[in-house]
Amino acid sequence: MVKMWEEICEQPAALKRCLETNREVINMLVEALDSHDISSVVIAARGTSDHAGIYGKYVIESTLGIPVALAAPSVVTVYGKSLKLKNSLVIGISQSGKAADVLEIIREGNKQGAITVAITNFNDSPLANEASYHLYTDAGLEKSVAATKTFTTQMYLLANLAAVWAKDADMQQQLSKVPDLVSKTLELSDVIKEKVQRYRYMNECFVLARGMNYSIAMETALKIQETCYIRARAYAVSDFHHGPFAMIDKDMPVILLAPEGPSLKDNEEMIHKLKDAGAELVIFSDKDEILELGTTSFRIPKAGSDLLSPFCNAVVAQMFACNLSLARGLNPDSPRGLSKVTITK
Amino acid sequence: MVKMWEEICEQPAALKRCLETNREVINMLVEALDSHDISSVVIAARGTSDHAGIYGKYVIESTLGIPVALAAPSVVTVYGKSLKLKNSLVIGISQSGKAADVLEIIREGNKQGAITVAITNFNDSPLANEASYHLYTDAGLEKSVAATKTFTTQMYLLANLAAVWAKDADMQQQLSKVPDLVSKTLELSDVIKEKVQRYRYMNECFVLARGMNYSIAMETALKIQETCYIRARAYAVSDFHHGPFAMIDKDMPVILLAPEGPSLKDNEEMIHKLKDAGAELVIFSDKDEILELGTTSFRIPKAGSDLLSPFCNAVVAQMFACNLSLARGLNPDSPRGLSKVTITK
Repeated sequence: MVKMWEEICEQPAALKRCLETNREVINMLVEALDSHDISSVVIAARGTSDHAGIYGKYVIESTLGIPVALAAPSVVTVYGKSLKLKNSLVIGISQSGKAADVLEIIREGNKQGAITVAITNFNDSPLANEASYHLYTDAGLEKSVAATKTFTTQMYLLANLAAVWAKDADMQQQLSKVPDLVSKTLELSDVIKEKVQRYRYMNECFVLARGMNYSIAMETALKIQETCYIRARAYAVSDFHHGPFAMIDKDMPVILLAPEGPSLKDNEEMIHKLKDAGAELVIFSDKDEILELGTTSFRIPKAGSDLLSPFCNAVVAQMFACNLSLARGLNPDSPRGLSKVTITK
Repeated sequence: MVKMWEEICEQPAALKRCLETNREVINMLVEALDSHDISSVVIAARGTSDHAGIYGKYVIESTLGIPVALAAPSVVTVYGKSLKLKNSLVIGISQSGKAADVLEIIREGNKQGAITVAITNFNDSPLANEASYHLYTDAGLEKSVAATKTFTTQMYLLANLAAVWAKDADMQQQLSKVPDLVSKTLELSDVIKEKVQRYRYMNECFVLARGMNYSIAMETALKIQETCYIRARAYAVSDFHHGPFAMIDKDMPVILLAPEGPSLKDNEEMIHKLKDAGAELVIFSDKDEILELGTTSFRIPKAGSDLLSPFCNAVVAQMFACNLSLARGLNPDSPRGLSKVTITK
């Protein structure tokens, strides 16, 4: 079995474990946050970790109302400018804990007395050592170059941090369902294995979502690119009306993440607009009427909120990419030209 | 002549005019900013205007050091959460001034007593009427669906705002050269017309840049998509090492914006890595040694800084997209499936 698949399947256990591992440090961190007047959050990350960061931005903004800036590390590393971080929470995310530009942002935060947090999968990594708080994803060694379990555990830590910081017991309760939801999502594995066949010779696709699931659309596109070498591009549904819609034709399938919830109305409109334009749709949803509109549809478990559905969609996307890679005769564990640890300076 | 081309050529005059039109309101706005302790900037925009916003983020952060969050409007419009904007400068950018979700963010800012700014090309638009300050791009009616002169004037206003806010006379002096630099860039029109022929049957491409020019890479990809229906995707050089690099092969040309300056080192490394992987390069640069590495190269005028080179690169990209669209027998003024005014709710 390929490592990527094994690691996809380890996620329910990894998610449970990572929350246990971090309960105490999250509480300590929130105590520190409560004694500061945090006016903004800055998140620094690259690649898949950046997609976890985008999920974190949406969750923190919609839970706490604090504006979250995704760092443009080059401001510090290329242009040598200090960001004013004194009243900020600065979060650096990196699987390896070695991303050099993320480290620079954490260092800058420390220098200015900001509260700094590293989210990594290595306790003894430069990022973990530098930040005042380390949230350890504790996902076990990730051997596949294509990140899976470190991605969902990064997301999970960010969401739990937001819930504890907001003193939102209901949100914490909701989040406790994530490992089970992911387990249920894994039951789709046979269906996905069968249905990816249709896309064996696909050259390109779009991936669309709205709101919280936008981060997962980004990650879906990246996973498909790196494991299948298919031209996949992600957009927020709201941005897709600009420019990119012009690209649509019948051989350009569109993957749509459209769970029940407040973002469904916009997704539904886009689905009909796409169908009118003759596009083939691949739909991830938990709603019958929506699933019926796809040429290919994957029924995710009822998550009940846009806070949780990203976990289900992420896992469907991972299984889709991994199986499609295998169907194309490729090895998803070792994409050409990539290495597991990326140290961008 | 197509309207897009006419409007590209109007840019030197439009840039000059828009700065004149806004000198006074920028000064008044900066007076207001100086009497507040602004802890963050929030920019809301979609499509091309969002790319101007990304340029604005880099310029404001690297000039003033204030973290800039690009708004995720769905936090407000889909999830109904208020962002805490009291100590923020809130900027909404929209060519038409009608983008409904951008308007929501400005309204939210006003409600909380934030300083709000609209950047639009219509004095009597919902956004212009709602915001406390209106920066009027004054670019003249833009008839082509593909935005050009409204994009560079949006960028120009953001950069001038940052320069005046920072009391940076040298930066203001530098920015005064932009209309001339754009004039000189337009002299490339014949070269570009000739050299686009090679890409008549191109199916896809990547566009890469680092730092300030990342925003222009995004805009280049969008322009090529909407006018040529070519699969174009933009990445920051630093992100391209993750995932997307796996896609590279010899039929996937890469457009690289690589001007002399602090970001050149990273670009140069990527150029060599791409050449080793057999990729064909299209290079925009002002440096001989770099230009020589491209299969196709466009020599932009010496801008002398990453603050200014984005204007030159943007105009080369516009000319490239417009001519390539014509070479493909398309009409760049009316991309299929798009309308000039996009009202995302």
